[in-house]
Amino acid sequence: MELAQAVLAGERLALSRTLTQVENDTPEGRSALNALFPHAGHAHLVGVTGAPGTGKSSLVNQLARYYRQPPAGEKPKRVAVVAVDPTSPFSGGALLGDRIRMRDLAGDPGVFIRSMASRGSLGGIASATAGVVQVFDAAGFDIILIETVGVGQAEVDIASLAHTTLVVEAPGLGDDIQAIKAGILEIADVLVVNKADHPGVDSTERALRSMLELAHPVAHTIVHHGRLEISASTATDGTLWIPPIQRTIATDGQGIEELADAIARHRTHLLDGGGWQRIERIRLQSELDILLQEALITCWRSKVPEDIYLETIDQLIERRISPHQAVEKLVPCNNQ
Amino acid sequence: MELAQAVLAGERLALSRTLTQVENDTPEGRSALNALFPHAGHAHLVGVTGAPGTGKSSLVNQLARYYRQPPAGEKPKRVAVVAVDPTSPFSGGALLGDRIRMRDLAGDPGVFIRSMASRGSLGGIASATAGVVQVFDAAGFDIILIETVGVGQAEVDIASLAHTTLVVEAPGLGDDIQAIKAGILEIADVLVVNKADHPGVDSTERALRSMLELAHPVAHTIVHHGRLEISASTATDGTLWIPPIQRTIATDGQGIEELADAIARHRTHLLDGGGWQRIERIRLQSELDILLQEALITCWRSKVPEDIYLETIDQLIERRISPHQAVEKLVPCNNQ
Repeated sequence: MELAQAVLAGERLALSRTLTQVENDTPEGRSALNALFPHAGHAHLVGVTGAPGTGKSSLVNQLARYYRQPPAGEKPKRVAVVAVDPTSPFSGGALLGDRIRMRDLAGDPGVFIRSMASRGSLGGIASATAGVVQVFDAAGFDIILIETVGVGQAEVDIASLAHTTLVVEAPGLGDDIQAIKAGILEIADVLVVNKADHPGVDSTERALRSMLELAHPVAHTIVHHGRLEISASTATDGTLWIPPIQRTIATDGQGIEELADAIARHRTHLLDGGGWQRIERIRLQSELDILLQEALITCWRSKVPEDIYLETIDQLIERRISPHQAVEKLVPCNNQ
Repeated sequence: MELAQAVLAGERLALSRTLTQVENDTPEGRSALNALFPHAGHAHLVGVTGAPGTGKSSLVNQLARYYRQPPAGEKPKRVAVVAVDPTSPFSGGALLGDRIRMRDLAGDPGVFIRSMASRGSLGGIASATAGVVQVFDAAGFDIILIETVGVGQAEVDIASLAHTTLVVEAPGLGDDIQAIKAGILEIADVLVVNKADHPGVDSTERALRSMLELAHPVAHTIVHHGRLEISASTATDGTLWIPPIQRTIATDGQGIEELADAIARHRTHLLDGGGWQRIERIRLQSELDILLQEALITCWRSKVPEDIYLETIDQLIERRISPHQAVEKLVPCNNQ
């Protein structure tokens, strides 16, 4: 509770401690989250995803710098960066990246960068990320950039946390990447062709454009009760959002201002058309569902005697019962 | 039941139908799985994972061809390929790949290739993959190559299904890939440097070798109760398996025989040292845990009135209660 108060008062050390407690899902972290939750709900959550090699991290750095030093007449925004790395279950890879980035924006109290390594399960990392985002939101950060390294389902799920999702592509990344596009294109609110000074940029943009036309009307992916649902991203007033394609060169900052504009336009589109509240609902529901799953398992485990569980495993290994039969035995569901 | 019998009798059409039923988790699929389960447990499951652009698919194709046409004196093996594509939640990308591959090994009754698109949740794809693998195993396939596209946690989890895991790398894939290596290196039983004719192959192998030395003693990742555990891959007789590094050029078949040898040596290592049974236990337990989670959620949902759930969501959106408080309300866990 005191920790939460210090976070709300803007104390950086308290923020950092709270993030650690939340990431580790400690009782202190949970109680801080409960206290902070009513103060969250104002930040613009921007997901940044895309295949390895597209230069996502440089892009996120440039965006953060832009928000801190906007063109004359605009107010600097407070920016949090949450870098989710589900590919690195053991090692400190994420921390290394953290240090490299820190150098770039170090000393600026309006920027906070947090790297999260995977915690072994998709549910684990998704709920930890949701918690960390809530803390930043309550602490008054205006923009939260949620960067995911990798190209799997985890990234799709984590991107579904955001109000605005950037999908980053780059020229010349080979056939596998082409295949991946098909899936993640459909979660994109803004498409970024980074490394726009590399050869092949025209054909990359052309490919994106034709896939975009195929995918139209654009669908927005959401996770509901553990399943994917598709809801057209038409706003309630009938305005349709067509994902713009923005070229950038993150290494020298080209296209960043235009990209920030596209992000701001999407925010306005959501707020004007009712999409903001819809995403808020979906996001909180998906967060709840992940926590519900964890709670159900914890509760079940606390009730099933360990020897019955182990005995069932033995029968399974001797192939006397199948996995489905084992489940029927361990989770008898009586609907009375 | 008749479907299962036809699968055991080697009928290809029945096999194909059963795979579809299992993938869609139909009652027919479940009952086929129950009937087939006692007949499984003989196949060598080989996971193939690695970042996009490393040429995994070509490598898997070459391995399949090698097992079908082994050197004189060796018996051809029946090979199943399960291509898991968690990056493509909507589109038919996986099917396209399927057709391209099929052309290559078409008409050979000793090969069966199955592509699986993602089904929206990690649990979904992991349990569907486990089921499909069980069917192939019961149907008498000797080697099951489980290929995962992508580089996230999903791949780590799916790779943990296998007895032997190949991690495929290739020269010149940039920095993000380097970072990824750190995580997936630790699940590798055999490291493959594919595209060994490309520039930079020496430095890629050198990097792998130094990471391997860092990671020693090599750990094997397993999923237990939704958490990652690490168990040294020391066999019970004390023999330690050091992952060999094998160079290949999948496009022309170079190094494939040596790679197949390394896979066979790992199998012998597991069988001799007790590792085979240990992995079997871990695999079935992780399979059971995934099914348990699904069953717990289904059971809970059938018991909680929809209006209470929706009312809680509303309170959440109005930020009158936090996600953790909502869970405490919806899943009161009484330990009596």
